[in-house]
Amino acid sequence: MTLAVRYTAARTLDTAPAETRSPGPGEVELAPAYVGICGTDLHIFHGDMDARVHTPAVLGHEMSGRVVRVGPGVEGWQPGDAVTVMPLRWDDTCPACGSGHQHVCQHLDFIGIDSPGAMQQRWIVPADTLIRLPDSLALDRAALVEPTAVAVHDVGRAGVRGGEKVVVVGGGPVGVLIALVARAVGAEVRVVEPNAHRRRLAEELGLTVWNPTAKNVSELVREWTADAGADVAFEVSGAAAGMDTAVEVLGVRGRLCLVAIHSRYREVNLHRFFWRELTLVGARLYDRSDFERAVALVADGTIPAERLISKVVPLTQAPAAFEALEGGGDVMKILVDCTENTDNIQGAAV
Amino acid sequence: MTLAVRYTAARTLDTAPAETRSPGPGEVELAPAYVGICGTDLHIFHGDMDARVHTPAVLGHEMSGRVVRVGPGVEGWQPGDAVTVMPLRWDDTCPACGSGHQHVCQHLDFIGIDSPGAMQQRWIVPADTLIRLPDSLALDRAALVEPTAVAVHDVGRAGVRGGEKVVVVGGGPVGVLIALVARAVGAEVRVVEPNAHRRRLAEELGLTVWNPTAKNVSELVREWTADAGADVAFEVSGAAAGMDTAVEVLGVRGRLCLVAIHSRYREVNLHRFFWRELTLVGARLYDRSDFERAVALVADGTIPAERLISKVVPLTQAPAAFEALEGGGDVMKILVDCTENTDNIQGAAV
Repeated sequence: MTLAVRYTAARTLDTAPAETRSPGPGEVELAPAYVGICGTDLHIFHGDMDARVHTPAVLGHEMSGRVVRVGPGVEGWQPGDAVTVMPLRWDDTCPACGSGHQHVCQHLDFIGIDSPGAMQQRWIVPADTLIRLPDSLALDRAALVEPTAVAVHDVGRAGVRGGEKVVVVGGGPVGVLIALVARAVGAEVRVVEPNAHRRRLAEELGLTVWNPTAKNVSELVREWTADAGADVAFEVSGAAAGMDTAVEVLGVRGRLCLVAIHSRYREVNLHRFFWRELTLVGARLYDRSDFERAVALVADGTIPAERLISKVVPLTQAPAAFEALEGGGDVMKILVDCTENTDNIQGAAV
Repeated sequence: MTLAVRYTAARTLDTAPAETRSPGPGEVELAPAYVGICGTDLHIFHGDMDARVHTPAVLGHEMSGRVVRVGPGVEGWQPGDAVTVMPLRWDDTCPACGSGHQHVCQHLDFIGIDSPGAMQQRWIVPADTLIRLPDSLALDRAALVEPTAVAVHDVGRAGVRGGEKVVVVGGGPVGVLIALVARAVGAEVRVVEPNAHRRRLAEELGLTVWNPTAKNVSELVREWTADAGADVAFEVSGAAAGMDTAVEVLGVRGRLCLVAIHSRYREVNLHRFFWRELTLVGARLYDRSDFERAVALVADGTIPAERLISKVVPLTQAPAAFEALEGGGDVMKILVDCTENTDNIQGAAV
């Protein structure tokens, strides 16, 4: 029996038999190996996205796995191939697609939110979403490719260059990945994070981390930059105070890359944007080149993915892992291991 | 006797003898001809900028005039030369100057706010602030060069290209100038303006203008752009609702150029910046190349400056003109004529 983790209602997940069928034309059947739990998955779990998500919904979009079967007309893929999935389907007809920005298609199907995701033991996706993984890359680490692709995209949108001074506001998984990617292009990076566990982890990765509850971050930046202000700030906290910090630390012509989802309107110091000629750049998702670069960065160890994995739980314990994650900040990334042999599991929460 | 218009306290202007002295090394004495009254001058008049302005303060930074005398070491300028002034002095030592952005120097002296301005009959300025005017350009029209330079800078910061669809939110003098400059680079432009007088004037200049109190601007933009959204929006209104409109009308990867001064924090739909990967660009003042392009645009009639001048008042009536302008929107640009013979005026408000 193959299982799926399903969101059925606010704060309720269950496991149920995965829906299985043969892959159609252009489709591939995968056996997901590891699936990361993302902040968006938690938002869904909390019920915040019920207007968008059709229940029961199989979650999961940060994954690694192997090809099981290919559908008619699919070339270049074999059973056993190690892959990750860029979980986007666009309509290729809307104005966003027309202008070459398919990843923000006006009718985007984000696989794992708008259609069934990876947290199951068999998963059918379009072949053109597949990204090949090198044999040398362990599949648990490869589950970090998707959030790394987010970070690559963000660093690219901000146009970070070597030697620039960069402040990352928020030291969760995406913040840390942005810091590591920015460091890899030669930037000097500071991370702002109130949670002690996350600070410690980021420091262990060689990052300099500031605690905004203990220090005045603006003053620290002034000292660090000899009063010039930072070149780039990333707002990854999603908090009003984080947005304020990101605006305040920037020097003249500084660029603020907005990564976090602020579901409410925020009070923003627009005068500072005028006065210092700042730029705010929204960044969402990624494109194929971001994904391919992310594979390379995880594979060559630039992103020490294994250090970001706090815990791996078997598929059947995913519901409990979501509840634990609600508790908050003392973890980075939790992976769901979908390779569990579930043949003997009967009616667990099914 | 030469006179100056002075701000002495909130809502109080007087006229007094202009301070006269010989121009020092590197300085030039000018006889201002026409000086425009700017929104910033009105802010000062209201008392909003008392923390920055040292009273008594001679206002005025949108001007045209002629060279009267040059100080020691000044080359290339002769008495009688027609000029305007780029009213900026920078320290050349701060980080902003170091990175080539002198116009937003961290210790900028904006002449006419931080130091004495042009609303007087003799005015001493550094020779390197002078911008030559062509003989063909009437001096009243030339007083519009400075706000046109603002518009040139804004359109440049937004990166407007031919064929793009541009929405200008706010149809006052700067908004109309932005619309005209954007049109001159080949953009399709719509202006959003609630004031009927301003709408009529903009329409007379061949602009398409929408009344946001009568129509749903977002819907109009969707129709106009076949659901793609605008490429560029300029926020020139300074109002919370204007900022909202500017965000809402933009399509994927749209650019919002923030021109207006929002002295308060504003509630901003940051989610839209994320979702559509929008860019916000702050724009302040101008550099020499903007000024030189502005001279050319006013001189060749691309900017029909004479149409934007609502009224010309003599220097001695400038205080009354400020009070009239407080009433609001039924004027565009008022010029103060500094060429008045004041020899027979004794103790007017002196």
